Amino acid sequence: MIAKTPKPPYYAVIFTSIRTNNTNNYLETAKRMEELAKLQEGYLGIESAREELGITVSYWDSLGAILNWKNNIEHTIAREKGTEIWYESYHVRICKVVREYGFKKESD
Amino acid sequence: MIAKTPKPPYYAVIFTSIRTNNTNNYLETAKRMEELAKLQEGYLGIESAREELGITVSYWDSLGAILNWKNNIEHTIAREKGTEIWYESYHVRICKVVREYGFKKESD
Repeated sequence: MIAKTPKPPYYAVIFTSIRTNNTNNYLETAKRMEELAKLQEGYLGIESAREELGITVSYWDSLGAILNWKNNIEHTIAREKGTEIWYESYHVRICKVVREYGFKKESD
Repeated sequence: MIAKTPKPPYYAVIFTSIRTNNTNNYLETAKRMEELAKLQEGYLGIESAREELGITVSYWDSLGAILNWKNNIEHTIAREKGTEIWYESYHVRICKVVREYGFKKESD
C-alpha cells in the first residue's frame, strides 16, 4: 500500500480533490485509470486515500513521464469527465522528491 | 480542505502511513501536531485523508522550515511514540513543488 519507490530523485504528482455527489461510473473509471497508469513508461507507484478530501499521489521517474501520462488520450477523456461530473474542485501539484526515509515495525 | 498554497516553488512533505490497532491517544496527538505545525514559521498548509492507508501532505516555504519542524521537541516526542505505538510502517518523502494547477466548479 505504501509505494516502493527507488532512491530519489524522482517525481510525484499530488492530486487533491473534493468530489461531487455524482458517483456515476466514477469508481470504474478511477480503477481503470490506476491500471492504465501502471502500464505507462516511467510509472513508479501510487498511493491513495479518501475521506471528505481525496489524496492520490503517483510517482514517476521523470517530468517527461508525467507529461506523457497527462497527454494519454484515455486519461484526457477521463479528466474531462472529471471536471464535468465527478469533481467539485481539485488541485494538482507536480513535485521533485529530493529526500525520503521510512519506518517498518519489526515482526514480533 | 484543499490547501491554499502560494505560487511554486515551495516544498511538500508526503507522509504515508499504516496504523497499528493501538489508537491510545492517537487522535489527540495527531490533532495537537496539526495545530502545532500551523504555528511554525514557513508553514503553508496541510491536507490529510485516511482509509487503510493514511496520507498527510504538509506544505512549507523552505527545506529549512521542514527541518525546524522535524527538530521541534514536542514533534520529536510524538514521532517517537508513533514508531513505538501507533504506526506499523510509514514513509516520508520531502519534495520540491515545481508546478501546479487547479480546478473549481463554477457556482450554479
